[in-house]
Amino acid sequence: MEYALENVKVLDLTRVLAGPYATMILGDLGADIIKIEMPGMGDDSRAFGPYVKEESAYFMSLNRNKRSITLNLKEEEGKKIFKDLIKKVDVVVENFRPGTMEKLGLGYDTLKEINPKLIYAASSGFGHTGPYSKRAAYDAVVQAMGGIMSITGQENGKPTRVGTSIGDINAGMFTAIGILSALYRVKETGQGQKVDVAMLDSQVAILENAIARHVVTGEIPQPQGNRHPAIVPFETFETQDGEIMIAAGNDALWKKLCQAMDHSDLSEDPRFKTNPLRNENHSALKPILEEITQGKTTAQWQDILDEAGVPNGPINTIDKVLEDPQVKAREMILEMDHPKAGKMRVPGIPVKLSDTPGKIRRPAPLLGEHTEEILKEYFDYQDAEIEKLKEDKIL
Amino acid sequence: MEYALENVKVLDLTRVLAGPYATMILGDLGADIIKIEMPGMGDDSRAFGPYVKEESAYFMSLNRNKRSITLNLKEEEGKKIFKDLIKKVDVVVENFRPGTMEKLGLGYDTLKEINPKLIYAASSGFGHTGPYSKRAAYDAVVQAMGGIMSITGQENGKPTRVGTSIGDINAGMFTAIGILSALYRVKETGQGQKVDVAMLDSQVAILENAIARHVVTGEIPQPQGNRHPAIVPFETFETQDGEIMIAAGNDALWKKLCQAMDHSDLSEDPRFKTNPLRNENHSALKPILEEITQGKTTAQWQDILDEAGVPNGPINTIDKVLEDPQVKAREMILEMDHPKAGKMRVPGIPVKLSDTPGKIRRPAPLLGEHTEEILKEYFDYQDAEIEKLKEDKIL
Repeated sequence: MEYALENVKVLDLTRVLAGPYATMILGDLGADIIKIEMPGMGDDSRAFGPYVKEESAYFMSLNRNKRSITLNLKEEEGKKIFKDLIKKVDVVVENFRPGTMEKLGLGYDTLKEINPKLIYAASSGFGHTGPYSKRAAYDAVVQAMGGIMSITGQENGKPTRVGTSIGDINAGMFTAIGILSALYRVKETGQGQKVDVAMLDSQVAILENAIARHVVTGEIPQPQGNRHPAIVPFETFETQDGEIMIAAGNDALWKKLCQAMDHSDLSEDPRFKTNPLRNENHSALKPILEEITQGKTTAQWQDILDEAGVPNGPINTIDKVLEDPQVKAREMILEMDHPKAGKMRVPGIPVKLSDTPGKIRRPAPLLGEHTEEILKEYFDYQDAEIEKLKEDKIL
Repeated sequence: MEYALENVKVLDLTRVLAGPYATMILGDLGADIIKIEMPGMGDDSRAFGPYVKEESAYFMSLNRNKRSITLNLKEEEGKKIFKDLIKKVDVVVENFRPGTMEKLGLGYDTLKEINPKLIYAASSGFGHTGPYSKRAAYDAVVQAMGGIMSITGQENGKPTRVGTSIGDINAGMFTAIGILSALYRVKETGQGQKVDVAMLDSQVAILENAIARHVVTGEIPQPQGNRHPAIVPFETFETQDGEIMIAAGNDALWKKLCQAMDHSDLSEDPRFKTNPLRNENHSALKPILEEITQGKTTAQWQDILDEAGVPNGPINTIDKVLEDPQVKAREMILEMDHPKAGKMRVPGIPVKLSDTPGKIRRPAPLLGEHTEEILKEYFDYQDAEIEKLKEDKIL
């Protein structure tokens, strides 16, 4: 077996971000992802800019390692083909608004009758239960409701949206985790089940110590800028040409930092000797350190602090991330060769498996690119039948 | 089988956040997590405040569903017990700095000789390869280097750290995904492997369309506040008593919004008829809408917009998140009963499995709480032997 998930077959009804992110994770590790799209239209995100030769870069970056089949699930013949496929796969994933699959007559209760081993995974804004279940959600809405915005932002500043769609992406990751856990159990017992992941739930699950702090102290966590709530110095400092993050996580690192800055006197200063003292005297210490950091460039400080073993890093913009030596060495930016758009750089695969490494085996598919291939592979369709189904707008 | 991962046995050497988050995910879904801690000290985060009756709330919120055994891996007898345990488990997880396990003589190459089915998962700052591999990292450092800070913040504002430790947490999630994928493959082929997840890689993997935008347009994505880059209105608005997120994702929702606001005239205004026009005239539209939203409270707007079917949400602080009806209905805040600290609310389980739902089966363990239990369960240790090992500071 070349890939960890090589034998896993997934029917993928998902669109835009949360669902496609989940199936991309599985596809990267070898699962066969059959993306089912509406004839003539496809995944909504095919219409999201920017474009490369009329192909959406947004869509291409989320749909590698998937094959596309067009199938009209509103028509009886389309439903029939879908149900026939259900018999032959391990997983179906959708991120419609809850109730949509039931309206199509393709809800979990129907599908599990056809295939009791089936894992039915649903990723939605608020989940398949509870009072908000039927509401539409967008990433911005769940970031607002889920609390993360209330603790992100500059000190005393406004609540701030995380600049990546963490509401969607974390839901996609938990959906992948749910599918993989359910797959393991299928191996043990042969029984499928439903996986129900909500974007809002996923936001709550990543609040970590903000919840612990609140329930224990009653304090309501606020945006705290780029500073650690309890460790000093552990924040960004201005340099000659930008900013640098310095994280001196304990007293030993504090001493090393002072030495590296050629200011060993600071670590002897009674105001700054221990972390509790540095916390107390933060407003005195910050400008002293920043005057020093302003004397050199970010790159110079990186060299000095790396040499001294003090954790630090530049605040990389996206162009710098793509050029970072570690990012490159870890193959976290890969090139994908698309038949229409040509070569395009996309994020790599963060799950590094030593024996069965993931790979970009194929670029994102054109709409319906694999319709015939899949129908012939799974069933016995003849060209004429496929042609007829296309004319009837089933495919 | 009551739990999806019931038969999975995990030796857990992880400390603080990224690793413990990964094993918490597995433990929540039923895996037996044996947390190995240094005698007399334990997981560093046992010393992180705030405390409840001398127990760290931080530690307790990340270590439910785990059993704790103390074991000194620096001593030969400790190493022997560890290797004996390795024979009997499916997974070992560590988040030391790369090289640490090798120094202890317990690297993957050694352990796989003992158990070829073993999955060895490592979660680290920069990963087990590449030029920065041996460096220490903290969440703040990888958030800075990984690009997410550069796109988070108010419009024209400073790069901003995400208020939750997304650098650690996403690495934990990808580690869980790697382990589950490798477990699936063990079921298929009987072969274990190493899973190597880096915090920095994980940050790159969640940048989503920021990378696509940059590689296609050359533009360097900047902090964009709480506003959608291409859809209007899709941002936060001030109300009489706070703010509300309104996400009118298309022209139909825009019309509904205007109706709900009692300003149908706005959707007829030639400046605002289509999304491209609203984008162009955002600076004219925003104050008009905000004057309207300022006329009522956030709760009033929620009722009005929910009724109209316009996606919206309040910017909940953590206390409000805990009281949200949907969060409660989805059991995303659970109560854990700790033998020393008493009852404490913690985040629930976002992966909802219909047949084998996850559960908080046990609270976070006291240091070494299950040492005897585990030694007797896995081996034939007698009380006197255990007593001796404790005296010798092996346990």
